Amino acid sequence: MKRFEKHIFVCENVRPEGHPRGCCSEKGSLELRQQFKSRLKELGLNVHIRANASGCLDACEFGPTVLVYPEQTWYGGVKLEDVEEIIQEHLINNKPIERLMIKDPKYNRDA
Amino acid sequence: MKRFEKHIFVCENVRPEGHPRGCCSEKGSLELRQQFKSRLKELGLNVHIRANASGCLDACEFGPTVLVYPEQTWYGGVKLEDVEEIIQEHLINNKPIERLMIKDPKYNRDA
Repeated sequence: MKRFEKHIFVCENVRPEGHPRGCCSEKGSLELRQQFKSRLKELGLNVHIRANASGCLDACEFGPTVLVYPEQTWYGGVKLEDVEEIIQEHLINNKPIERLMIKDPKYNRDA
Repeated sequence: MKRFEKHIFVCENVRPEGHPRGCCSEKGSLELRQQFKSRLKELGLNVHIRANASGCLDACEFGPTVLVYPEQTWYGGVKLEDVEEIIQEHLINNKPIERLMIKDPKYNRDA
């Protein structure tokens, strides 16, 4: 097994207010990562699954953006109440969640 | 093909001066990411290969830490002059560079 079995990157990029692409931080991504982090710890999963902050993932329009490696699954518009489902279904049961995936065809093409 | 063929995360975490684990930013990781970014652009590779900032990757002692997905290759102590080799050998030719890999057995176990 690699250092991390699953590695979740939550975009925390900050752009100036009013930027046409928006940014993930203004859409609640900091709280989102915090929620992943604390739930993974509560479940005792934080040794092998890491919720990581990242800089701009270049999917600003779809934010808050959550990217799961090694499979490179791109989630967009993720809400606090989606965190548990991502943890249980995707991170634990390995079933990526179709309804949360970014629909733009540039992303998730093998999904 | 997925959105990014290779996705490089360069840790830019900042810790207070004197922290026992140190941090990647004080070891030059910002310049490192900048170098990846500008060389990838010069080579016309930046559409499919992205150099991304990340928060703490929890490999502080080995920093600056550079993590390459989807293969999850962990590089440590990366210097500006290593960037070209990582791009040419690993990112283009798919041959991860043994001498730059973090030697702690927690990392790169399948390498």
